[in-house]
Amino acid sequence: MASKKPLIVKLGGSVITDKKRPFTIRKRELARLSRELSGSRYPLIVVHGGGSFGHPVAAKYQLEQGYKHPAQRIGITLTRLAMNRLNTAVVYSLYSAGLPAVSIQPSACMTLDNGKIKTANLSPIKKMLKLEMVPVLYGDVVFDEMRGVGILSGDQLVSYLARRLAARRVIVGVDVNGVYTSNPKLDKNARLLPLITPSTWKELSFGFDEKTKDVTGGMGYKIEELLKLAKAGIESEIVNALKPGTIHQLVTGKKGLGTIIRGK
Amino acid sequence: MASKKPLIVKLGGSVITDKKRPFTIRKRELARLSRELSGSRYPLIVVHGGGSFGHPVAAKYQLEQGYKHPAQRIGITLTRLAMNRLNTAVVYSLYSAGLPAVSIQPSACMTLDNGKIKTANLSPIKKMLKLEMVPVLYGDVVFDEMRGVGILSGDQLVSYLARRLAARRVIVGVDVNGVYTSNPKLDKNARLLPLITPSTWKELSFGFDEKTKDVTGGMGYKIEELLKLAKAGIESEIVNALKPGTIHQLVTGKKGLGTIIRGK
Repeated sequence: MASKKPLIVKLGGSVITDKKRPFTIRKRELARLSRELSGSRYPLIVVHGGGSFGHPVAAKYQLEQGYKHPAQRIGITLTRLAMNRLNTAVVYSLYSAGLPAVSIQPSACMTLDNGKIKTANLSPIKKMLKLEMVPVLYGDVVFDEMRGVGILSGDQLVSYLARRLAARRVIVGVDVNGVYTSNPKLDKNARLLPLITPSTWKELSFGFDEKTKDVTGGMGYKIEELLKLAKAGIESEIVNALKPGTIHQLVTGKKGLGTIIRGK
Repeated sequence: MASKKPLIVKLGGSVITDKKRPFTIRKRELARLSRELSGSRYPLIVVHGGGSFGHPVAAKYQLEQGYKHPAQRIGITLTRLAMNRLNTAVVYSLYSAGLPAVSIQPSACMTLDNGKIKTANLSPIKKMLKLEMVPVLYGDVVFDEMRGVGILSGDQLVSYLARRLAARRVIVGVDVNGVYTSNPKLDKNARLLPLITPSTWKELSFGFDEKTKDVTGGMGYKIEELLKLAKAGIESEIVNALKPGTIHQLVTGKKGLGTIIRGK
């Protein structure tokens, strides 16, 4: 019998939505990914990003800067409604593939303090896993002790849940094959990295500033979060979720299809 | 300046949905109630029932009996999806009336133990009130320590939130004028009670068993919850939310339009 430790799968916003078109879900990709996930050998937690739903609205009302004026309140309402719409589509898609999925609003059970998770009631998620259901969370507008309001990214959420719930592994599904030595969309000589550890990452980013580090496919922040996780003993892998079959292979126990991030 | 204590308004499932037609919202009533609520002089918390959304699905999968077999998992998924759909409509309607409303899933922040609320993270709700936003909660399928899963009624939720958040008052909007001496739909001589206290309730229910007590318009359970609240010093009032203007009068400070429930 497989371990009861949950597998956390992140579906990037650029995978399940069309980032160039506001409020557009990539329905076929989402349906395919749902079918692939339904074959999982392990208990699942799904976390998805905001893509073209949450991001444009949150940016319009400058929610990433915290709560500064009352006009932002309607922006919080609209961002939450947009994310709720996307999340409902994801839950419905997972349900259609046979998974007993249930939405969990991060904004209902967590608060931030200066951008970091401060309070969280994880009892509902633990109970769902006990019933062998699939909690579905997402990047969300969350109340922040210091700033009034803030953005809880799907990446921070994945890293936090993996540690608190002792995940067996984390899979981060994106729209490229993994992490490259430079941005593969701009540089022909970019080389895929099969493995990142704290020491290889240090070498890779040596001499790069925060800005250029993010040029490796915009993945600097993701990798920093996943390295924290690696130090806590939890391995993760960044893979191309748009390549059919990849997620299915990973949820059935395969490894090494993209970039693995581990402690050493 | 008005007190900062929140006013909790319950919108009954029979008020905002057509209980005879599955998944049917009373759109005009909901829009009118949203406009009435938007005139509130006090911070608001809105709680709504399940009406023809949550109830039929939860009943079909016998979720009120707890978790007994894996086939119920898809029932949990479907009930949560149905309630999410109704809740989104309520939040959107409040937003359309100008209120910065935000959905809060009870199932994401609370767990039950044998039908009673056991864990709850109320930080997100408190933070929302601080930002003068309007949290919107609802009767929901919630995980239960003892039974696996259970139904958290809007009535229990209202009573719990009112005590924990020291509400200034509770308004319970239903589809009759208040509490009657007997069921007004069956008995012509039924008389509206302007006030219920623990002692008048005792007199009223003297000699009645639990079943017949519920014949007073199906309100026995509601009144028991509100009497607990009354004993904690929080007054409530059951009113006809279908009568235009009633909710508006109450959120602007009027009293005595239906049945008041208080400690003495």
